[in-house]
Amino acid sequence: MNPIKVGLLGIGTVGGGTFNVLKRNQEEIRRRAGRGIEIAMVADLDVERARELTGGEVEVVNDANLVVNHPDIDIVIELIGGYGIAKTLVLQAIEQGKHVITANKALLAVHGNEIFAAAHRKGVTVAFEAAVAGGVPIIKALREGLSANRIEWIAGIINGTTNFILSEMREKGLDFDVVLKEAQRLGYAEADPTFDIEGFDAAHKVTLMSALAFGIPVQFDKAYVEGITKLEGKDIRYAEELGYRIKLLGLTRRRENGVELRVHPTLIPAKRLIANVEGAMNAVVVQGDAVGPTLYYGKGAGAEPTASAVIADLIDVTRLQTADPEHRVPHLAFQPDALSNVPVLPMDEVFTSYYLRMRVADQTGVLADITRILADAGISIDAMSQKESREDEQQTDIIVLTHVAQEKQVNAAIQRIEALPTVLSDVTRIRMEELS
Amino acid sequence: MNPIKVGLLGIGTVGGGTFNVLKRNQEEIRRRAGRGIEIAMVADLDVERARELTGGEVEVVNDANLVVNHPDIDIVIELIGGYGIAKTLVLQAIEQGKHVITANKALLAVHGNEIFAAAHRKGVTVAFEAAVAGGVPIIKALREGLSANRIEWIAGIINGTTNFILSEMREKGLDFDVVLKEAQRLGYAEADPTFDIEGFDAAHKVTLMSALAFGIPVQFDKAYVEGITKLEGKDIRYAEELGYRIKLLGLTRRRENGVELRVHPTLIPAKRLIANVEGAMNAVVVQGDAVGPTLYYGKGAGAEPTASAVIADLIDVTRLQTADPEHRVPHLAFQPDALSNVPVLPMDEVFTSYYLRMRVADQTGVLADITRILADAGISIDAMSQKESREDEQQTDIIVLTHVAQEKQVNAAIQRIEALPTVLSDVTRIRMEELS
Repeated sequence: MNPIKVGLLGIGTVGGGTFNVLKRNQEEIRRRAGRGIEIAMVADLDVERARELTGGEVEVVNDANLVVNHPDIDIVIELIGGYGIAKTLVLQAIEQGKHVITANKALLAVHGNEIFAAAHRKGVTVAFEAAVAGGVPIIKALREGLSANRIEWIAGIINGTTNFILSEMREKGLDFDVVLKEAQRLGYAEADPTFDIEGFDAAHKVTLMSALAFGIPVQFDKAYVEGITKLEGKDIRYAEELGYRIKLLGLTRRRENGVELRVHPTLIPAKRLIANVEGAMNAVVVQGDAVGPTLYYGKGAGAEPTASAVIADLIDVTRLQTADPEHRVPHLAFQPDALSNVPVLPMDEVFTSYYLRMRVADQTGVLADITRILADAGISIDAMSQKESREDEQQTDIIVLTHVAQEKQVNAAIQRIEALPTVLSDVTRIRMEELS
Repeated sequence: MNPIKVGLLGIGTVGGGTFNVLKRNQEEIRRRAGRGIEIAMVADLDVERARELTGGEVEVVNDANLVVNHPDIDIVIELIGGYGIAKTLVLQAIEQGKHVITANKALLAVHGNEIFAAAHRKGVTVAFEAAVAGGVPIIKALREGLSANRIEWIAGIINGTTNFILSEMREKGLDFDVVLKEAQRLGYAEADPTFDIEGFDAAHKVTLMSALAFGIPVQFDKAYVEGITKLEGKDIRYAEELGYRIKLLGLTRRRENGVELRVHPTLIPAKRLIANVEGAMNAVVVQGDAVGPTLYYGKGAGAEPTASAVIADLIDVTRLQTADPEHRVPHLAFQPDALSNVPVLPMDEVFTSYYLRMRVADQTGVLADITRILADAGISIDAMSQKESREDEQQTDIIVLTHVAQEKQVNAAIQRIEALPTVLSDVTRIRMEELS
């Protein structure tokens, strides 16, 4: 059988990795797929560099339209990124009846419904294993491996940059700004790190996982997104003393009245396996009603780890190229006509536990006032600790860990606490998940 | 579309779990699979109990042949276990053109080549996600999720009984016999625990993973199998002091001249994620050349975790029922005509590091003799520690951690060490893996 012909849009880090791994492992891949897989065309603005990388074996063009419209190309790999030209090209490739493989989580989290619908109409696949957690086959696990389960929740460390920063802050006792600079120097953070450190990248990924888990459309605009830029070293230390680690988690959870979808720094018990995922590594815990908790761990970024996912999709698509569309796994795990319209809950409606830190005057009655406000709001206290005040100070830090409560109740209580004359700072509020 | 009709052979723990999960989640499963999945017949020797469990909704028979030969049954789930009747029934079901799903690792590790060949001839699937690590979709990860990679090695905690025993021994400082009794009382160990504690169960599972990873036939008879019955609490403690945990690992590794395939107690660095997998949980680390290390974690046994894997297979098979055989993933990940004949290496040829403990006379020159023997054998020492001898004794324990060496060299060196007049005990030898 002739090799299947693939067109590659964008040969940067991941594109280069894909080209190299596909070449290096071509014999083994053919033994698995039963058919050769050949990158036949590459489109990149930097034609010279693309020619160098591909060693002259492949047709290189600078106009991606030539690839998506080429009659010999069966599969298009989109590695351009962003919402603009990438979206146009993906839709055009689908229109031309080509399968698409993409690592573009931003595109799918925002325009996925439109793209998947177009693909469904044309009977082609849009595969996106590489969009979440790099080479870790978490999309496959959610769509296929755990398909017996009613998924209850997913919690993931799905952004390597922020996990690297949090690991360094904890291990070396450094502040956010210092570690961010180090991360940029080492290449773990971009020159403009906003996308990662403000939580948007994680939110794109958890949006995709949420859709796969609960059979709902992708709804990035409904996600609550909070990054790590305001985290203080002090809270990481206090959390540690209490037996917790702070991680930027992407969380999605099924509730009776809807689905929670949120990204924020989160205290998790240090004894959980996922709490011990350090550096730029990724990990996702999925709780299913039958299987219980399962965890998936590995490199969430980088040329070859991401290429691993792109090529796994290539092999899947190659294998099913001549199959009927209904033989394929649906894009969002559930059949397109069986998606649910259960709403994504606003953050106010979310239930979780909380770590609250406040600076208070070191005087009688302060604790009584604070605990009274929490009790009045129906928020019960799991643990409380008052730090010893320094001799030259008349003030101290109080930490409160709450049991599960609703976000809006906690926000209201925080406002009342901040209004107390004995409370000298804003209340630092970090959410907490037992993940059990 | 009519529901696909499934026949269940054996409705014990896993069979009951499969029936219950399929029923409880039927709506969600239909939304995923695009088609209903119905257990239409159950065969079990205890017909009364089977009728009770299935609530009279299903035809129950005591002769499994009636199921495998029934023209309405499309898929047979084999949950009888063992090599005897189970093998006959699986082959008969295949002969009748039915797909088979099984959790029977023993059967596949020993007779898999024959069974997969028969299935290939008839164009049907034999699916076995439930055979390794319960509900953790590790078979799917190896066959599909990591298909871009040249797999380098796999290391797994794939037997919950032994991991529970080792966890308890370490945490509570108890001896093997005591913990085994506790495990039996709690239902974590069978009345006859041989299969688990002697490593055979783990060896069946790693045999399957080895075939999937390296594209070789299943070769259980070539596996090296050593259980945990001879482990002493002392070694667990010494390992801990040196920064290691002892786990029963199933290991398979690609070497230039063949494949290593072995199960034995293993020291692993305590800081590795897999070293922190405690109790009856399972975890598998897969090292791929592109993706690096990935880890998969979850419950490796139990009614519903195993049912989760059985039903995931059911959904996969249902989806591809009308597809051509070449659209399906090959049984052993590689195309049947592309399997490799690279040999499984005898244990003598294996390379690993070693923990050696010996009792020696507390006198001058002992260490010099031991280190000389190791040096002469080309075995280099990574760390050495001499325990303080008790005042009333003239003897002490010496621990040696070696760098990577070949098993036969180490065995020869151990013989020479044991022949030293100053060495008062046999040498306790536990293998060690950095897993990095």
